[in-house]
Amino acid sequence: MLRFDSDYMEGAHPEILARLSAMNLEKMTGYGADALCGQAREKILQACGCPDGEVYFLVGGTQTNATVIDALLRPYQCVLCADSGHIHVHEAGAVEASGHKVVGLPHRAGLVDADTLRAYLEAFYADPTYTHMPIPGMLYISHPSEFGTLYTRAGLEALAQVCREYGLYLYLDGARLGYGLASEASDLSLPDIARLCDAFYIGGTKVGALFGEAVVFPKTGICPHFFTTVKRHGALLAKGWLLGVQFDTLFTDGLYVRIARNALLQARKLRSVFLTRGYRLYADSPTNQQFFVLPESDAKTLAEKVGFELWARLENGEVAVRFVTSWATTPEQIDELAKLLA
Amino acid sequence: MLRFDSDYMEGAHPEILARLSAMNLEKMTGYGADALCGQAREKILQACGCPDGEVYFLVGGTQTNATVIDALLRPYQCVLCADSGHIHVHEAGAVEASGHKVVGLPHRAGLVDADTLRAYLEAFYADPTYTHMPIPGMLYISHPSEFGTLYTRAGLEALAQVCREYGLYLYLDGARLGYGLASEASDLSLPDIARLCDAFYIGGTKVGALFGEAVVFPKTGICPHFFTTVKRHGALLAKGWLLGVQFDTLFTDGLYVRIARNALLQARKLRSVFLTRGYRLYADSPTNQQFFVLPESDAKTLAEKVGFELWARLENGEVAVRFVTSWATTPEQIDELAKLLA
Amino acid sequence: MLRFDSDYMEGAHPEILARLSAMNLEKMTGYGADALCGQAREKILQACGCPDGEVYFLVGGTQTNATVIDALLRPYQCVLCADSGHIHVHEAGAVEASGHKVVGLPHRAGLVDADTLRAYLEAFYADPTYTHMPIPGMLYISHPSEFGTLYTRAGLEALAQVCREYGLYLYLDGARLGYGLASEASDLSLPDIARLCDAFYIGGTKVGALFGEAVVFPKTGICPHFFTTVKRHGALLAKGWLLGVQFDTLFTDGLYVRIARNALLQARKLRSVFLTRGYRLYADSPTNQQFFVLPESDAKTLAEKVGFELWARLENGEVAVRFVTSWATTPEQIDELAKLLA
Amino acid sequence: MLRFDSDYMEGAHPEILARLSAMNLEKMTGYGADALCGQAREKILQACGCPDGEVYFLVGGTQTNATVIDALLRPYQCVLCADSGHIHVHEAGAVEASGHKVVGLPHRAGLVDADTLRAYLEAFYADPTYTHMPIPGMLYISHPSEFGTLYTRAGLEALAQVCREYGLYLYLDGARLGYGLASEASDLSLPDIARLCDAFYIGGTKVGALFGEAVVFPKTGICPHFFTTVKRHGALLAKGWLLGVQFDTLFTDGLYVRIARNALLQARKLRSVFLTRGYRLYADSPTNQQFFVLPESDAKTLAEKVGFELWARLENGEVAVRFVTSWATTPEQIDELAKLLA
Repeated sequence: MLRFDSDYMEGAHPEILARLSAMNLEKMTGYGADALCGQAREKILQACGCPDGEVYFLVGGTQTNATVIDALLRPYQCVLCADSGHIHVHEAGAVEASGHKVVGLPHRAGLVDADTLRAYLEAFYADPTYTHMPIPGMLYISHPSEFGTLYTRAGLEALAQVCREYGLYLYLDGARLGYGLASEASDLSLPDIARLCDAFYIGGTKVGALFGEAVVFPKTGICPHFFTTVKRHGALLAKGWLLGVQFDTLFTDGLYVRIARNALLQARKLRSVFLTRGYRLYADSPTNQQFFVLPESDAKTLAEKVGFELWARLENGEVAVRFVTSWATTPEQIDELAKLLA
Repeated sequence: MLRFDSDYMEGAHPEILARLSAMNLEKMTGYGADALCGQAREKILQACGCPDGEVYFLVGGTQTNATVIDALLRPYQCVLCADSGHIHVHEAGAVEASGHKVVGLPHRAGLVDADTLRAYLEAFYADPTYTHMPIPGMLYISHPSEFGTLYTRAGLEALAQVCREYGLYLYLDGARLGYGLASEASDLSLPDIARLCDAFYIGGTKVGALFGEAVVFPKTGICPHFFTTVKRHGALLAKGWLLGVQFDTLFTDGLYVRIARNALLQARKLRSVFLTRGYRLYADSPTNQQFFVLPESDAKTLAEKVGFELWARLENGEVAVRFVTSWATTPEQIDELAKLLA
Repeated sequence: MLRFDSDYMEGAHPEILARLSAMNLEKMTGYGADALCGQAREKILQACGCPDGEVYFLVGGTQTNATVIDALLRPYQCVLCADSGHIHVHEAGAVEASGHKVVGLPHRAGLVDADTLRAYLEAFYADPTYTHMPIPGMLYISHPSEFGTLYTRAGLEALAQVCREYGLYLYLDGARLGYGLASEASDLSLPDIARLCDAFYIGGTKVGALFGEAVVFPKTGICPHFFTTVKRHGALLAKGWLLGVQFDTLFTDGLYVRIARNALLQARKLRSVFLTRGYRLYADSPTNQQFFVLPESDAKTLAEKVGFELWARLENGEVAVRFVTSWATTPEQIDELAKLLA
Repeated sequence: MLRFDSDYMEGAHPEILARLSAMNLEKMTGYGADALCGQAREKILQACGCPDGEVYFLVGGTQTNATVIDALLRPYQCVLCADSGHIHVHEAGAVEASGHKVVGLPHRAGLVDADTLRAYLEAFYADPTYTHMPIPGMLYISHPSEFGTLYTRAGLEALAQVCREYGLYLYLDGARLGYGLASEASDLSLPDIARLCDAFYIGGTKVGALFGEAVVFPKTGICPHFFTTVKRHGALLAKGWLLGVQFDTLFTDGLYVRIARNALLQARKLRSVFLTRGYRLYADSPTNQQFFVLPESDAKTLAEKVGFELWARLENGEVAVRFVTSWATTPEQIDELAKLLA
């Protein structure tokens, strides 16, 4: 069946699999202390323009968010995010599991803007009872957001400025970062992100890897003993070199962004397919997640032949649906979808 | 360099890698809901003789222990284990991270016996202040233990009996279970374990898989919503089918135990190499971890050419060392070691 | 200065202080095992009409909520409450500290109604991704609510019915329960609450005690080893008899409700004072918390001479304010307020 | 019945009760923001010789330990203490509840010495796998210890030195601090403790207060937002002035140490009673807890008429017992005990 359910349905980019296979029986040191991990870290720091930073490899996104947030916050602190933030909605309370409240903020298609953040913080500290509430210690953002939308450089700078004023860490969830970096709609580069955020992660699972997320702390020392915190969260892969070889491959010759471009290309075509058939956008995403409004009956018919996600029930018998492309999506798959919709 | 540091230095058994490669670009449903995971679960339950049980696939051992223990215990409960238990010693406080005290018990070479357990529990409940202490809710055992030793069927039956009397869950950490099942020294089968334990896991990382551990609850319903608990622990792999294909391969035609036998064969040879050179055992292990006593100077010389683990500093200038074989260890590697020791 | 800031500004009802003083040098058994605690428990269970239930005495409200919620929920569960619920807003993340998400629901003046709850739960379980979210395990309600409002018997029955259908515990925070029981506007008795709720607490701190809250589990066995959980939360008072003597006094000859009636009487007078001066209600409360809308300038002038709480900033230069009476409020204090407002 | 079970069997020193009664109906600001709390804080800081420190009032000892330890440690850290430490043995896992492992060290009658600590830390950091273990972040000591014994100034200085070298906080549990300060056997003053420890608490519950413990951070800023952490732990008393008036009384004219002296005087007499009857000491305590070895039959006979604690079962039919005096113990009670033993 034709499937656009998500961007983590395939395995790894063939170059990764080839390297994994080639070294399969080599004996490697465990827990990320091997040379390949070291090399991958250097390439990532170079791509981020922060050679003195730190990089850690974890396995999955929820795990990464929970570990980083737990590591950076003090017990009395909460984390702010968009009401739609993944940590708030779809991580089964993993952040609360380490004792921190997640506080949702209003957003525009998944993006929090600096004015909203500032207004929230001003009101928070103006409340004479604020010491009876968890103190905001971090802003969590997703880039691309859960709606596929992107922060601009100016937007992120403004957020970073508010965070600095109020003593919040700025943490960026880059589960789909490649699809953001590859977007022509975005003026936000990896070095920008490294300059503005206190921590972020570069998603592998959804962008070419079998699995794996690379946490970057652009400034060293922000998070002492993070290795032990990773272990404590059950997030330390014994065969850490599996992550090293994947990220080393992704960060060699720009593979990470290069393969992301294909997803965007196919996403634009997919978008045209829907728009030319008269459907309208539910959210205007310049990345690999595309959202459309369909009559429920159309969605039902389509669902018999195509996999996609039912995003929300709207009024008037309409639904919002999500279609996702990936680095592995082929033009033929889009063509087939077009035929089905014709 | 010749390396016997651990049993997680290589990748996966070639059959696993071949299957992964063959299906790399197939689009698979996420989070373990795919058909391969289903098939692997069935094979495992059949091998365990508990067709109505439940199986969940997680990524690593510390993660698995922390998730299962958190899922089964109530907040006021602690988990008992050998003083040498992995959860007590080398998991960075992952169990305490979910709020449970780990209480160490005396052991013989990593094994807790039923009399020790009973004596502890009798004394615990005889103490009039016991309600001011965490109530024992689980016994954690490792099989093989951290010293490579094995429980007998009678030994496990006796432990299970005490656990039932005192309302403790019996949970078996099978990180190296294959090496226990393959051992001729053991009369403990998978169905025995499934009959006697409330939960256990079958380790993949150290026995042929790239990574992955299969949690088995022999009786269904013991742990409602365990899927959500796994997600909450950041232990849910997005591409769950990666685990499905690995365990399906390992549990087809007895591959899991078959490849474990090689490790035991090489371990016996390795043991002879040391014993014939006049070194003595530090612990008497019938599995793939072998422990020897060496003069510190011998250990130093050897360490220049061979990787192994320094286990403990002893008196009189001696040290205990650990050598580990795996499914992938070759006879040539043992021969080479023998030459170096000659 | 005239003060209506809260209902926990004074010490204890004089009868309590007299008994405490009389027994001050008696040697009492610790941790609530004394005869006075036993006697107080019996009186409470009798007043609740559930002689086979269990009663535990804790010190404060946030502590009580955190302890009961932690004791009843499993790790994968969240607690639902009104968006205005005290645990959600003013307890510094104490519930999240034990790993549980707090999920806010729409409310009318602090009250959640059964239809809202049912609609939320239907939508929750209709979402195909619900297993990636914390599973609702409890409904928390406050009675009186944070707005001084009260559930009716029919309203609570309807909530209890939905909770039973969806497997939620129903837990009632009775920090100000006395003021609810004493209200003529309410048809909800202690036996009703005990019949409909799985757990609730009878607040002492705000209703005549120096401090102390009595947790009631109407059915025994719902919460094994709760004593140890209380200790683990640091909520076990060494001199537990201090709580026993207070609750024994409050539940002798109906003192608890009797003294609450005075607060309601003074609250009605206070309300008249504001209404006759042309101010309007912000929320219509039949209990001891009263809410009014004032021009900000009036509030500022008044604040120079009277203590009260600024509740919310409204539009058009108005503010909402809260005035609270207690068992100890005197008619003279209301008269004085009336003069100040004249 | 004559009772020497513990030092928290009576209420409060009469001066405290008198002041509480006198101000019972005064309206006081909540949560420790009142003038009495401010005044008590100043007196305590003055007595400690650290006028720029911070003082917080909590309700009980387990709560205080759990709150301070959680506030000071990072998630990856554990706390070290004597194997007999109260947090390790009798606090129902309250420290683990906030995610921190408690690691026991060998001790002499409850006291950890600097050499033991240093040896442990040297071995810890010499272990190449130490990053897989919780990193020591604090040393917890009790003074007097659980055996009534006392640190000397030199002993505490040596511990503090090791803590500084290894980056550990030094935290002193002073549940019975008054009985240590009053002891002529001790050269350790409050200013010494404040100079050497990063945090400690002055116990009220066992030394003259109804309840209450005063946490002292001798250097300000060590623990930002501690107020919110206290609230999050359910440890913030609404009527905080109840704690203020008690500590203000105890720290006026040296009442705290003065009343402790009586307990020591009676303890010395009690000790003579046993020694002159030929019983021997189980531990040699210079404070208000006294430990003796008795034939089990003697203990049983005595227990019919006197309350005391069975401390441990020894060999040869002997038991260790604990007798505790308090500020309220009278000479007559000792005389009566002497008669019973005659």
